[in-house]
This record gives sequence, C-alpha cells and structure tokens, in this order.
Amino acid sequence: MNTTSYGVEPFFRDLVAHGLIIPVGVPGVFGRGAVFEDVLERFNRCVSDLSRDDGAEFCTFPPVIDRRVLERVHYLDSFPHLCGAVHSFFGNALQAIALAERAGAGEDWGGLLGQTGVVLNPAACYPLYPSLAGMLPPQGRLVTMLNWVYRHEPSPEPTRMQSFRVREFVRAGTADQVIEWRDMWLQRGLDLLQALGLPAHADVASDPFFGRGGRILAQNQKEARLKFEVLVPVISLEEPTAVCSFNFHQEHFGNTFGIRTADGATANTACLGFGLERITMALFKTHGCDPAQWPQPVRARLWP
Amino acid sequence: MNTTSYGVEPFFRDLVAHGLIIPVGVPGVFGRGAVFEDVLERFNRCVSDLSRDDGAEFCTFPPVIDRRVLERVHYLDSFPHLCGAVHSFFGNALQAIALAERAGAGEDWGGLLGQTGVVLNPAACYPLYPSLAGMLPPQGRLVTMLNWVYRHEPSPEPTRMQSFRVREFVRAGTADQVIEWRDMWLQRGLDLLQALGLPAHADVASDPFFGRGGRILAQNQKEARLKFEVLVPVISLEEPTAVCSFNFHQEHFGNTFGIRTADGATANTACLGFGLERITMALFKTHGCDPAQWPQPVRARLWP
Repeated sequence: MNTTSYGVEPFFRDLVAHGLIIPVGVPGVFGRGAVFEDVLERFNRCVSDLSRDDGAEFCTFPPVIDRRVLERVHYLDSFPHLCGAVHSFFGNALQAIALAERAGAGEDWGGLLGQTGVVLNPAACYPLYPSLAGMLPPQGRLVTMLNWVYRHEPSPEPTRMQSFRVREFVRAGTADQVIEWRDMWLQRGLDLLQALGLPAHADVASDPFFGRGGRILAQNQKEARLKFEVLVPVISLEEPTAVCSFNFHQEHFGNTFGIRTADGATANTACLGFGLERITMALFKTHGCDPAQWPQPVRARLWP
Repeated sequence: MNTTSYGVEPFFRDLVAHGLIIPVGVPGVFGRGAVFEDVLERFNRCVSDLSRDDGAEFCTFPPVIDRRVLERVHYLDSFPHLCGAVHSFFGNALQAIALAERAGAGEDWGGLLGQTGVVLNPAACYPLYPSLAGMLPPQGRLVTMLNWVYRHEPSPEPTRMQSFRVREFVRAGTADQVIEWRDMWLQRGLDLLQALGLPAHADVASDPFFGRGGRILAQNQKEARLKFEVLVPVISLEEPTAVCSFNFHQEHFGNTFGIRTADGATANTACLGFGLERITMALFKTHGCDPAQWPQPVRARLWP
C-alpha cells in the first residue's frame, strides 16, 4: 500500500522550502537550486552510461530554432496553443519611446513588436532533422542531445513546466531498425527508473492535440501505438506523470526533410526523451527532499 | 607577430567542417557538436575550480523569465532592438485553422498570436535579483549560475549569437564588498584565459544602447568605469571579441528589487559573465580545430 500523500500545492511548497526550486512569479517557470541540479545531472549521467556502447553522436541545440522547422513539420496544425514564437522590436526611435512607456506602465507592449525568424523549440528532436537530410549509412543514424524545450501551458503544477530539459535520443533508419531500437529503450528506461526506486510503468499514450478535432487525432495515435510513455506518480497516484516519451514517427520527418535509407527509401525515425526535471521531481517525491536520506541502492546508482 | 588570418566566413566554415557547430539555417543559431560541448564544459569546470573556496551558491534558471522583470529593470528603455518576447496562440478553433494555413503557406503568422507572461532572458543575472529581495547577511551574497541568454541580433558572425550560455556570478553587498570582488575576478579572468594560451586583455566598455541617445548613455557608462570586458581576437585582430563582461550596477537592482545590506542600506550589486561559446570559439581560433593538437599546458589545464 502506497502511504505517500499527493497534491499540487504541498509538493510545490516542499520543493521551495528545501531550496530545490526558486519561484520567479510566473507559473511553470522557476530557478533550480544546486541540489536539484546535482540530482538532474547525475540522472543524466546514468542515461549516458546506459547508452555508452550504442555509438550515439552527441550534440546540443539552443532553446530557439528556425521558425521554418515549425512550419515544415506543421506543428501549428496540431499544437497552436503550445507554441512560443519570438517577437522583437523593429521600429524607429519614436516607436521605441512608446514601447518603453507602455512597458514601464505595465501595459501590453506585444503589439509594438514583430515576429522574428526563430521560435522556442517545442520538442527536443525537431532541430536535428534538417541536418539528417540525405542518405543515411546502412546502419542508420543515432544521435543524442540535451535541449531546453518550451510549451506554453502555464500551470501551478510543478511538473507542468513552460520550460524544461529533455535528454533525447533520435534514431533514423529502416522501420525495423527504428522499432527494434525503440522497444529496447522502452525496457531500458523502465529498468533504470525502477532501479532508482521509482514505481514506473509504461503505457500507450497520445499527444495533447488542439481542439475538438484533436480528440480524433489522439485516438488514431493510440490505436496505431505510435506513442508510449513511462509514468511515475508524482502529483497524483491515479494520474501518474509521464517522465519519458517514446515516439515512432514512421516516414513523417523522413518525407519532410528528405532523409533516405542507404537503399534510397524514405527513412523512418523514432525518438525518445527523458524529462529531466520530471524525473528529478519524481525522485524527490518518492524518496524525500534530502538525497542524503535516500535508500542506499538509489544513492549507489546516482553517486557511484 | 601574430600570423593568424582572421575573417568571418573562413572561421564559420572551419567550425562547420570540423563538426564543431551545426548550421540550422538562421543566422546566430546553430547546434553544438560533441567536441565543442566537451571543451565548453571543461572551461566551465576551470571556472568552478577557481571559485571553489568562494562559497558561492549555485542555481540555474530556464531560458525564459517573468516578463515583469524586463519591465521593472527598464530593459526596453535601453535595448528594445535586442529583446525577445514570447508570443503564443490564444484563439478559437476557426482562428487556429487560419493560423495553420498561414504558417503552412510560409506567410507571416505572428499577427495571430498574443503576448505571454514570459520573455527570453537577455542577461544571465536578471532572473536572480527578485529572489535577493530583503536583507542580506553581513558578508553579502554570492551566487553563480549557468543560463541561456537571448539577444535579437541575427548575424553571420559566429561569435554574435542569438542564443548562448553565460557562466555568471552575482555579488550583492556594500559598494566596497562588491567592487573589491569585481576587481579580484577581473584579474582572475585574465589569468585563466592567458593560462589557456589566449591573448586576452581587459578594457573599459559600454553596452550597445539603442539609437542616437544611446551614444550618450554609452559615453557616460565608460566615463564612470561601470563596465569592463576581457577581449580576445577571434574574428579580427583590430576588433577583438568580448569574452567576459564585468558590470557594477551600483544601487540599480538594489533599489528596483528591495535588496538591503545588513545595516539597512540599499545594496550594491555587480555581476560577471564568461561567454562560454565565445571562449570556446576563441580556443579553437587560437589553437586550431583539433584539441588533440593544442599546446600541452592548455591541454593540461582543460584535461587535468
């Protein structure tokens, strides 16, 4: 029997009281303290250790990406409500004075800005695909990244962040290569989280598509078993939090960005991401806010 | 005599050819390859080692911050052209269709968005100040961070990025405490960069204030010696690149956010930042694109 008590506000208060997060006044945005960062980095290192012999190439992308990537993958068809577009000021000296006055008075100043060529990156894997264009080697490609991701869903719920980090892996190749790899990692992810004492389980999942039409898209996605998640109770026992996500895109990105297998066919891709803040929070929720008191096997894995 | 040849395009081409950066199609935005990240992290560790006994608190903030921080520090009075405000979609299903159609056709879709409560963080130290509000301990406070920073200045020049990381330190206390600490770090920064074989020197500097009035502000800032930079030739021998910046804010943030010294006076603050990508690029420019070939004393410091 699980005797942990759950809830949004007590957990947020606990994280703040222990200096693990630093509120900044906007929901879904907060600073991360030294202990929080230490645990997050140590978990990330566990993932690196697990994948050491896989031959993944490493890179990282900044939090903003080319606006055209969002347009080409048709992100706004499905998730307009989550997008974060970067706007800046293109006006003259007189208009700059008006801008400063509005901002100084706490009035809306967004109308005086214009859209730039960049957007906040809404999915850790997106910036990579354009660079995979062309023919893949026979074994395909495997790339890992650690990227900041943005989603416009302000919420007081600590695990529902506007801005967070994902340790991501992307596999490109034939459908068989890609699915075999995804299935292998689904088990690896579960094993790692369970070894860290987290009551994790996997399930078929769907994305939060916009609007009424979105419900049908989500249903189709579930039936095709294109998305899996690993979940851990953090805020609620009945509605556990998705801490890893595994997505099979079939030929979607291969078609969009001209990625081809060694025999000239359109490549399949899959990605998986560990939500680093969510996993860190799941560890604090499960084992308490003081890592010195965590169970010995968990400490041995994170502080080897 | 310096026999290195300088220039924007050859350096960018070199960085790309060696897999150090990955172009993404927007100026000032690119992926960072594994070797680039390794050097960047190792330099960051050198900074941590230098400051080990200073007792700095560590934290990190996401790339987006509370919009009101920008308003309260009057950022738009001085740097409207550099700001990055985050806009998102707040409309209904019909408007979402129009948005997706415009984006799909490559037309401007920013006009269909509205401003959110967050902006991209334009200076690594900004998100910290609200959390320093109240009375400081007698010795003041010292905080270090590693934050992503955004500036809207798209440029083909590799060291002029829209999005980059800063290893930042912030000191809050009396004017004497803060200036003494700033001067100590100015020397430390120079010593570290010179130990890494970089031809670094320090100079008084000014911020890139907007418009004609900005020239006067910049002149005043220089005369008051409020800003220093450490510079290294990367793109040009005559116009070296600022790789560290040291700013004395006097009572500016103390007043704005209600930060007080132990005896009740308004606190002074200063900050310093190492531009991690710029320093990494300076190392590649100075020593070549293959770290295995770097001079032995440089390697000994970075790969201890």
